Amino acid sequence: MQLTAQTIANHLKGDIEGNPEVTVSSAARIEQGKPGTLCFLANPKYEKYLYTTHASIVLINRNFVLQQLVDCTLIRVDNAYVAIASLLDLFNTMNSVNRKGREFPSRVSWRAKIGKKVYIGAFSYIERKACIADNVKIFPQVFIGKGVTIGENTIIYPGVKIHNGSKIGTNCIIHSGCVIGGDGFGFAPDANGIYKKIPQIGNVVIEDDVEIGANTTIDRATMGSTIICKGTKLDNLIQVAHNVEIGENTVIAAQSGIAGSTKIGAGCMFGGQVGIVGHLTIGDKVILGAKTGVTKNVAAGKSMLGIPAMEVEKFRRSFVIFRNLPELNRNVMDLMKKNNEENK
Amino acid sequence: MQLTAQTIANHLKGDIEGNPEVTVSSAARIEQGKPGTLCFLANPKYEKYLYTTHASIVLINRNFVLQQLVDCTLIRVDNAYVAIASLLDLFNTMNSVNRKGREFPSRVSWRAKIGKKVYIGAFSYIERKACIADNVKIFPQVFIGKGVTIGENTIIYPGVKIHNGSKIGTNCIIHSGCVIGGDGFGFAPDANGIYKKIPQIGNVVIEDDVEIGANTTIDRATMGSTIICKGTKLDNLIQVAHNVEIGENTVIAAQSGIAGSTKIGAGCMFGGQVGIVGHLTIGDKVILGAKTGVTKNVAAGKSMLGIPAMEVEKFRRSFVIFRNLPELNRNVMDLMKKNNEENK
Amino acid sequence: MQLTAQTIANHLKGDIEGNPEVTVSSAARIEQGKPGTLCFLANPKYEKYLYTTHASIVLINRNFVLQQLVDCTLIRVDNAYVAIASLLDLFNTMNSVNRKGREFPSRVSWRAKIGKKVYIGAFSYIERKACIADNVKIFPQVFIGKGVTIGENTIIYPGVKIHNGSKIGTNCIIHSGCVIGGDGFGFAPDANGIYKKIPQIGNVVIEDDVEIGANTTIDRATMGSTIICKGTKLDNLIQVAHNVEIGENTVIAAQSGIAGSTKIGAGCMFGGQVGIVGHLTIGDKVILGAKTGVTKNVAAGKSMLGIPAMEVEKFRRSFVIFRNLPELNRNVMDLMKKNNEENK
Repeated sequence: MQLTAQTIANHLKGDIEGNPEVTVSSAARIEQGKPGTLCFLANPKYEKYLYTTHASIVLINRNFVLQQLVDCTLIRVDNAYVAIASLLDLFNTMNSVNRKGREFPSRVSWRAKIGKKVYIGAFSYIERKACIADNVKIFPQVFIGKGVTIGENTIIYPGVKIHNGSKIGTNCIIHSGCVIGGDGFGFAPDANGIYKKIPQIGNVVIEDDVEIGANTTIDRATMGSTIICKGTKLDNLIQVAHNVEIGENTVIAAQSGIAGSTKIGAGCMFGGQVGIVGHLTIGDKVILGAKTGVTKNVAAGKSMLGIPAMEVEKFRRSFVIFRNLPELNRNVMDLMKKNNEENK
Repeated sequence: MQLTAQTIANHLKGDIEGNPEVTVSSAARIEQGKPGTLCFLANPKYEKYLYTTHASIVLINRNFVLQQLVDCTLIRVDNAYVAIASLLDLFNTMNSVNRKGREFPSRVSWRAKIGKKVYIGAFSYIERKACIADNVKIFPQVFIGKGVTIGENTIIYPGVKIHNGSKIGTNCIIHSGCVIGGDGFGFAPDANGIYKKIPQIGNVVIEDDVEIGANTTIDRATMGSTIICKGTKLDNLIQVAHNVEIGENTVIAAQSGIAGSTKIGAGCMFGGQVGIVGHLTIGDKVILGAKTGVTKNVAAGKSMLGIPAMEVEKFRRSFVIFRNLPELNRNVMDLMKKNNEENK
Repeated sequence: MQLTAQTIANHLKGDIEGNPEVTVSSAARIEQGKPGTLCFLANPKYEKYLYTTHASIVLINRNFVLQQLVDCTLIRVDNAYVAIASLLDLFNTMNSVNRKGREFPSRVSWRAKIGKKVYIGAFSYIERKACIADNVKIFPQVFIGKGVTIGENTIIYPGVKIHNGSKIGTNCIIHSGCVIGGDGFGFAPDANGIYKKIPQIGNVVIEDDVEIGANTTIDRATMGSTIICKGTKLDNLIQVAHNVEIGENTVIAAQSGIAGSTKIGAGCMFGGQVGIVGHLTIGDKVILGAKTGVTKNVAAGKSMLGIPAMEVEKFRRSFVIFRNLPELNRNVMDLMKKNNEENK
């Protein structure tokens, strides 16, 4: 399917600079753009490619100032990253398969409730009292435990395991290999140092519009619920421990871990491999740099970095000196030597 | 089911302060306690909720000193955390399903030995010469390789993969998505930097009473065995490399990793995201703070922190100065300036 | 099966010191060597065991200088680690099962192409337009999406999920629980901080001779391809984000993570729990110590350590002073005190 620059500009409410009749059939990265493809420029690190790309069309921000002439047709939009998302959606929809119905062999308890237009892939297993709403897609090899509820339009990719009592909202995406509702890590040592398991009788609640990356694990609460609020996005291989609560529209990058009973606010952004100890409160709109290790409560709006975490500017000022510690040390040695000589 | 404070106190050998006739039907967290629920207070951070909770009963430690009057009935016990575990066990047992028998389709080699009252879920696969003892529960979508042995009462949750030759003890719990007995990461480079695989012909041995968290990976030994000793508890997303040995009753929090051939003692406690390099010896009762990076042997009883790891008190003393490095640096600059002026 | 020292030496082109007629039937670790086993010594940390082992044969490097007499027969080779790999291969082959054919129930689209001597385990699922070459082994409970191609001799272990459009080369090994081709983590926030998903329409390309550890996740590109080049080896629980490219013959240890669009050179070696932020270029033959956090481009051949990463020698020099910061601080305090007294 060919789309003209004019059609795309109309769809995106963008403005054309160049030939409105040029056509594209797919999208590419700007450094790999070929004739017939559309690219976008959002990250300024890639600006140099704008002047050399062979792409036919490039989406750029309305306020972007060109440093040179370009060969391609530009479409200026308010936010090139949002605009490309919308176009990729279009390309995606054109290629997607409309899965529905139940494949065999699969195992669905007669005491489970299954909505309309649901897809259940082969080798999936749904226990009694599970409740699957309309248009849910359950890919092959999924396990859904007793009493689990899944809201409309949610997609559960192959191999996901959702344990009994979990509640999943509408329009969620759960990627392959996730484990939701496994037991929290709770043990009490006896006088001999032998650990007795604390039964974990709570559940996991995932609200609407949440996306959870591949092989991420979210443990059930000891009592009550582990909660992921509406619109939050978790990347791959993340650990969410028992009784954690994560607020709305928070994004957390891969391999981060949040220990038990910690509460995280709304609108936060965490880099990869972040760790947060248990029983803390992290405010709204907190930013944590990659690999940050949080050991104390963090107030709303703060940006933190380091292990243990410090305010990011404070960390950077200390780290600059850390890099030069050998010089600082030599200076102190010199001063001590001079001081000793003077005092002789 | 309603339980009176008196019944619970008798069960726990606790002492009642308040109304022995008050009844509860479930457990809750102290900050969410409602009438008819029982809570507990073990972590002093939650003390404030004791004075405001609407729970009917709260378990507290015998030596806990009240700062205010409370509305609820208290049951004093030696260890509130151990006591709640015992009660949760009771609630848990009341709700659990007694699974046994084989579901279809599943694939069990006729050359596998299956004990009495074993549960084998649908879509599970058991290879020849596997030996499954009495009362084992194998949930759906599990893979059990050739010659694997599993001891009595062990629970294998959905989607676990246990490769050939692994030995699992009695009363273990292996959570969803674990991979046990995958190949160790062993390669030898040739003169051109091309890596040749070192075949991994050893196995994994997991002793009795071990619990292993979701999506954790435990690699088989190159030769000999990777060993997890009796009573040890591993959290989610942990990596245990080939030929590692972990002693008895050690607990390791999520996302920690232990490189090849390292030996870890008994009764250790490691925080989350800890890393230990290969070929080390970590003594008994070692404590590692979250995110610690261990690069040298650690003697028994030590507490370590930092990357690379230092004794915890030493790390803290250095880190206090790190936080104030800009000030230290300014002081040195001032001294140098004065020194230069004096020497003019 | 018994092999004589002479047979082994001929096979490895090694030289015997001791009895060429002594026989072995299996391999063991040098500290656990028993009569009838063969061991090897490559890591000098284990030299002490050479003088006490009960093994019948020990492989050592040709240039190794004995500090004492030994009881066993030695076979000297150019590289003991490469030699043991070759012997383990032999032991491995003697024990391996020759799997081929399709087990039932499994689900294979009639529009998938399946080569000769392919093994497809029970409960595996292969979608249309997938193309599986000769001698591929697909273990049970694997998911292979639409249009996936898998090259000759590749092994896909139980529970692997490979999403649509992924290309896997020849002679690869993909360990249990890996997720290949899940969506990249891409979202654009709107004015209200609500995230809109950026569809991920690219794929994953894995070249020949790649090995990927258990539960590792490799995300598909937003546009274009996430690429793992020929001969590269990834350990367990690694995260490779969208549009990452990893060069040839690079080895990466467990739990490392590489953020989006970063390019990594050939012949690199990364320790465990390394993190690399997005949009960077890491040159050829770069070495990153365990837990390193890379935030800037790294030139070819550099060795880095620390968070954020510094050249390893520079890091070590700074860290030595960090360990002694309290002393440095006291020295500065003393100097300031003296300085103040002098100026009174």
